[in-house]
Amino acid sequence: MHRFVSELFPILRSITGQGTRDTLGRIRERIGIDIHEVPSGTKVFDWEIPDEWNVSEAWIEGPDGDRLIDFRDNNLHLLNYSEPVDATVSLEELKPHLFSNPAMPDHIPYRTSYYKRDWGFCLSHHQLENLKDGNYRVVVRSSLEPGVLNYGELFVPGESEEEVLFSTHVCHPSLANDNLSGVALLTFLADRILKADRRRFSYRFVFVPGTIGSITWLARNESRVARIQHGLVVACVGDPGHFHYKKSRRGTAEIDRVVEHILRRSGEPYGIRDFSPYGYDERQYCSPGFNLPLGCLSRTPHGKFPEYHTSADNPDFVTPVALEGSLLRFMEIVECLEQNRTYVNLNPKCEPQLGRRGLYRMMGGYADAQEDQMAMLWILNLADGSNSLLDIAERSGMGFDRLGKVADTLTEQGLLTSVR
Amino acid sequence: MHRFVSELFPILRSITGQGTRDTLGRIRERIGIDIHEVPSGTKVFDWEIPDEWNVSEAWIEGPDGDRLIDFRDNNLHLLNYSEPVDATVSLEELKPHLFSNPAMPDHIPYRTSYYKRDWGFCLSHHQLENLKDGNYRVVVRSSLEPGVLNYGELFVPGESEEEVLFSTHVCHPSLANDNLSGVALLTFLADRILKADRRRFSYRFVFVPGTIGSITWLARNESRVARIQHGLVVACVGDPGHFHYKKSRRGTAEIDRVVEHILRRSGEPYGIRDFSPYGYDERQYCSPGFNLPLGCLSRTPHGKFPEYHTSADNPDFVTPVALEGSLLRFMEIVECLEQNRTYVNLNPKCEPQLGRRGLYRMMGGYADAQEDQMAMLWILNLADGSNSLLDIAERSGMGFDRLGKVADTLTEQGLLTSVR
Amino acid sequence: MHRFVSELFPILRSITGQGTRDTLGRIRERIGIDIHEVPSGTKVFDWEIPDEWNVSEAWIEGPDGDRLIDFRDNNLHLLNYSEPVDATVSLEELKPHLFSNPAMPDHIPYRTSYYKRDWGFCLSHHQLENLKDGNYRVVVRSSLEPGVLNYGELFVPGESEEEVLFSTHVCHPSLANDNLSGVALLTFLADRILKADRRRFSYRFVFVPGTIGSITWLARNESRVARIQHGLVVACVGDPGHFHYKKSRRGTAEIDRVVEHILRRSGEPYGIRDFSPYGYDERQYCSPGFNLPLGCLSRTPHGKFPEYHTSADNPDFVTPVALEGSLLRFMEIVECLEQNRTYVNLNPKCEPQLGRRGLYRMMGGYADAQEDQMAMLWILNLADGSNSLLDIAERSGMGFDRLGKVADTLTEQGLLTSVR
Repeated sequence: MHRFVSELFPILRSITGQGTRDTLGRIRERIGIDIHEVPSGTKVFDWEIPDEWNVSEAWIEGPDGDRLIDFRDNNLHLLNYSEPVDATVSLEELKPHLFSNPAMPDHIPYRTSYYKRDWGFCLSHHQLENLKDGNYRVVVRSSLEPGVLNYGELFVPGESEEEVLFSTHVCHPSLANDNLSGVALLTFLADRILKADRRRFSYRFVFVPGTIGSITWLARNESRVARIQHGLVVACVGDPGHFHYKKSRRGTAEIDRVVEHILRRSGEPYGIRDFSPYGYDERQYCSPGFNLPLGCLSRTPHGKFPEYHTSADNPDFVTPVALEGSLLRFMEIVECLEQNRTYVNLNPKCEPQLGRRGLYRMMGGYADAQEDQMAMLWILNLADGSNSLLDIAERSGMGFDRLGKVADTLTEQGLLTSVR
Repeated sequence: MHRFVSELFPILRSITGQGTRDTLGRIRERIGIDIHEVPSGTKVFDWEIPDEWNVSEAWIEGPDGDRLIDFRDNNLHLLNYSEPVDATVSLEELKPHLFSNPAMPDHIPYRTSYYKRDWGFCLSHHQLENLKDGNYRVVVRSSLEPGVLNYGELFVPGESEEEVLFSTHVCHPSLANDNLSGVALLTFLADRILKADRRRFSYRFVFVPGTIGSITWLARNESRVARIQHGLVVACVGDPGHFHYKKSRRGTAEIDRVVEHILRRSGEPYGIRDFSPYGYDERQYCSPGFNLPLGCLSRTPHGKFPEYHTSADNPDFVTPVALEGSLLRFMEIVECLEQNRTYVNLNPKCEPQLGRRGLYRMMGGYADAQEDQMAMLWILNLADGSNSLLDIAERSGMGFDRLGKVADTLTEQGLLTSVR
Repeated sequence: MHRFVSELFPILRSITGQGTRDTLGRIRERIGIDIHEVPSGTKVFDWEIPDEWNVSEAWIEGPDGDRLIDFRDNNLHLLNYSEPVDATVSLEELKPHLFSNPAMPDHIPYRTSYYKRDWGFCLSHHQLENLKDGNYRVVVRSSLEPGVLNYGELFVPGESEEEVLFSTHVCHPSLANDNLSGVALLTFLADRILKADRRRFSYRFVFVPGTIGSITWLARNESRVARIQHGLVVACVGDPGHFHYKKSRRGTAEIDRVVEHILRRSGEPYGIRDFSPYGYDERQYCSPGFNLPLGCLSRTPHGKFPEYHTSADNPDFVTPVALEGSLLRFMEIVECLEQNRTYVNLNPKCEPQLGRRGLYRMMGGYADAQEDQMAMLWILNLADGSNSLLDIAERSGMGFDRLGKVADTLTEQGLLTSVR
């Protein structure tokens, strides 16, 4: 995953344009996504697909003729969606078009102006402060013309038409944690799920430009979203911080309980936050007209790490260990969703005689057998069609994994059947 | 308000009689209330309007012929509803008719005997202890004859027939906090509401003798009470103590949440108590046959200040600042009730494009704009017809005022409509 | 009760056999229970009544010819349900058939092998460690033959067909707290209830062998269990420890609230535990096909006292004081269930005039009168058909007893009627 982050890092991405298309192409090489295109001017709910943005060069030369800024060095230098310009201007005239972040004075900030035409450059605060008076040559060779918006989508069918949706944004240029980490993680997660022996649910992975991309996807899939049973927006999963989960708008969806259960049992510190209508594409998925059961799982949340939206969010900031740990948690979440069935005890009047079936103190070593036996008693007692395995795990305090295995044994013995 | 308290203070009030009629007359001079009269003997639910009580003189002369007690000095001296007496009695015979409060030995206590015929005098414990043996001349020139019970009522119509009820008792003689403070506050609050440009709700103000008065009002308005959406009993709002709110019997009525919200955001200490069937006229309004959504708002609750029901509860005990602060809180409560609408987002699928409408980072100064923008996102996200503005305030942690203003802006922009 | 425990202590009990039959006979002498018998081989849900077990002798002689173990000394010495054996074996061959408890090295443990044919002896760990090499003569003269399973049952009719069920196990041999304490307590409780002047509910007492006995009772009474409104499994109520209540599977049944209320108001420490599917016969009564409103009340819970399932659980371990205290709590629980009616205020609009009925500050001494008056106001306010007396006790913080008496007074006055 870290190599994939590094490979994608230099590409200039935005909400439209060749760089985003190239990024989706690299994902397609790995997991065979479909790359959709939607023409500029298409109406998507209250919004409209903007003109496509592409750039060939962007630089500033100083009074001495030195090239002070070149977006080839770091594509954050260019205000994202900058309109073209070719002019010689005084420092005074230039300054309103220059953006720096005094809180991170050595680093280039990331700025955009998607829906208001403007041109500009981003630079370190140190560089800004050292600019001399004089005339500056400013060149942006960009185009803003009718084209397309692209997004990637992979559907992995399962036994049921009910879907689990994973979504991540692909519109940030050279930023690693926000959000090449999410792109890499979903690519590898999809690969694992594609290779799984069986899938109870169908899985859908969408790689979209932020905001306009998820709005576009929702507008084009409006009739299909009712199939989504669970979902996660994935972002900032490559830094070494602890996990933070932001709940769905519903707050008590199964995905909310599953993620909290997995994080609680991980033994590591973690944070749970209530839904708020600010953040990533959960803003759209959880808008009141959809209200999908979908939260957002990150390590350090957006805006809470100093490297956020600066050139310090580079491949050195995300670590292979953090990415691997994130993939593990996502796999555990998928596993828990898959296994979280609701059972009915087929012998509901009094306990069945476990001894006669060889199930009483006869599984594995003694301590484990005791635990397995308790797991059987809990499942048999609560399996009345109203409790999921997660409900049973939470009420009994027993591990979800053990309960899942014991439920399989009881099902094989004809003592249990799943109703959901 | 403090001048009005002082003006009304010397009048002898009771559950019936000329003093109470005079008090209602002074209120009428200010806000034009109707003064109702209900004849003695009228049945009101389980009760009956008692005979009217009036007094011309009441005094005791000691063994030396000195006038030791005269109700002209302080009308608390006379047991309220005392029957007439004209006798010379020994100290021994007199004592069962004398009432003092050893816990407040310098002050005259307030005692009544409405429904059991008796005569008596109240005096300071010091005075009681210094009475000499000998014969005492005791004179009460009172009348207990068929007459009327009076109460005052003001109806202020609003856009809706749904009503907010404010009720306070007017039967206490020379006591200032309990409850001329309530009389003054409701008089001034009614004046403000009469002068308001628009009123979503209709408002009803009732000034009633305690218990029998509210029972009478309920008996005569039984078919109309279903219109009452919110209400407050007002008592003891002139002392310098913190606010204490006693919830309605329902416990989760909108008025309960609104008052708690206002008190919490006031930044001052406050107390919230659950409903109990003892106190003021909420006992009647919240009886199970009515169960109105009505709590009781006080500063220091009845019985919790040492001056309570003694001659120390005089105009020096209530302060203009406390009365003014109380009026402010009541106005805030009214404002919150008026604004606490429930909205529906008219663009519920994905966020509307705020930028195109000039609503994105474009209101006021920057910090405020950020907050306004968050308020917009919260309202748009939660406005699904199930959340009131107060629900949104509590879930988001944002100020009710800001949300109200932002809701108006979004309504003007056609993005929102109120359904309640 | 303690004498009854001592009387029953020496008898060899098991899930079947003469000793259990004798035990039920002694209970019948006191309270006239029916003793039911169910033939071996009878199917009861997933189980089958086993062969009946009886023993005439069981002993081990050592290499020196000394009788080292004889079940006449203590019937715990014999593995319960041991099959017959008559053999001379080496110490090596003997050891797999010997059971001790190193944690209680001076005491004989209690072991059973009901459903897996085996023979064996239990002995103190000290004795086990001192066994010398050599040949041992081992004799168990037991029979395992078709016979019957017995259980005892007493039905005490009340005004209603709705039943309260008390159940305890009678299958443990010489163990006093677990569970002759329960046998004695239920015998004496039944006696009290038989002698009561009136009973709102009918009462059913069942004395059953653990697990197989309650399963048998449920199988033979399947159509009748819907009448059970409340119930308790009784176990370990003779030790000096505090009470511990294990809730019903429902968790919010009236019995759960009543027991917690009684324990809370007792002023003594106590413990409340959530339901778990391990323990005594509540496992069967609360299986999902029945889910009866029945918890388990003990002093120190099973397995939590060191004497548990050893020869140290003898009549010295249970005390007359603890048994008496337990009976008192059970009587309080019965009293609370009987009195926990739901009332409707027949004068629901405003308070009734209590003074006119002599109910206002006119009962008993002053402080008590104040409390009684508050109890009246609470009942009149909350008696709307949705609150039981226990609900009112919990909301008001007033004692259940006082509320019960005041409810009776108000009912006599025609102000209240019970609807449940």
